[in-house]
Amino acid sequence: MHPLNIVATAALGISLAGSALGAVAIRPATAVAYRQGLYRAILWNFVPMSEMVRGRLAWNHQGFAQRAGNVAFYSTQLLEGFTPGSITARSEAKPEIWRNWADFSAKMKNFEDASAKLAEISRNGNESATKQAFRQVAMTCKACHDHYRRN
Amino acid sequence: MHPLNIVATAALGISLAGSALGAVAIRPATAVAYRQGLYRAILWNFVPMSEMVRGRLAWNHQGFAQRAGNVAFYSTQLLEGFTPGSITARSEAKPEIWRNWADFSAKMKNFEDASAKLAEISRNGNESATKQAFRQVAMTCKACHDHYRRN
Repeated sequence: MHPLNIVATAALGISLAGSALGAVAIRPATAVAYRQGLYRAILWNFVPMSEMVRGRLAWNHQGFAQRAGNVAFYSTQLLEGFTPGSITARSEAKPEIWRNWADFSAKMKNFEDASAKLAEISRNGNESATKQAFRQVAMTCKACHDHYRRN
Repeated sequence: MHPLNIVATAALGISLAGSALGAVAIRPATAVAYRQGLYRAILWNFVPMSEMVRGRLAWNHQGFAQRAGNVAFYSTQLLEGFTPGSITARSEAKPEIWRNWADFSAKMKNFEDASAKLAEISRNGNESATKQAFRQVAMTCKACHDHYRRN
């Protein structure tokens, strides 16, 4: 076994065989775990922003802007995780995603754009404008989930 | 129910109650899901870099640099997920993390620093220097896992 393979396998705790991203096929379970991981990270940042917007957590301009920046980054990483037909028992993705890829990716782009705008607006520190931009992001979440996520 | 709460709950599919990050306590399962999600996202980017370093995937300078940048970002987000004592059946974290927090967070900082350096070096496009920097990152993974992750 190549030394680096030993390092990587020991360090990462998985076999690298069969998951050569960009080379051959990615296993559906790997893609599902990846994108669900990103959604978890988005949620982790989204919840405190939501709590601030609704006044259940003290308004923290800098904290909000940082979380908005995080979500903006994650939003750009999601689409790659929807490899063709990658559905497993754990997945909440509907097969319609790949039948309507242009629409799905457009909805994802709306999320990316709204998140980028929220990150920018929140850095300016206008609380009212930030709250409005946050609601726009939430609507782009819902627009996609309504069509492409199992309930 | 507040309209935004409806939106958020519908869009995100979870109850927001009890997970007001930054306010009260975060449930261990929430923290575990968050940090495991980040590790999945790191792995997703790490594997193709590893495959390139080992010559099993064609060297792609731009692709490598982009993935290195992704990992550098994720590395800075991990520590927040290790809320005090957050261990569940799904978690591979050892309780030693919180008994040796200074050492654990120093090891995490090593990972952040090595990842940032890899991102910077890989942007410059020197293949040999990039490979060396990648191996350094892999060692910082292993250094932490050896002490603080259950096998």
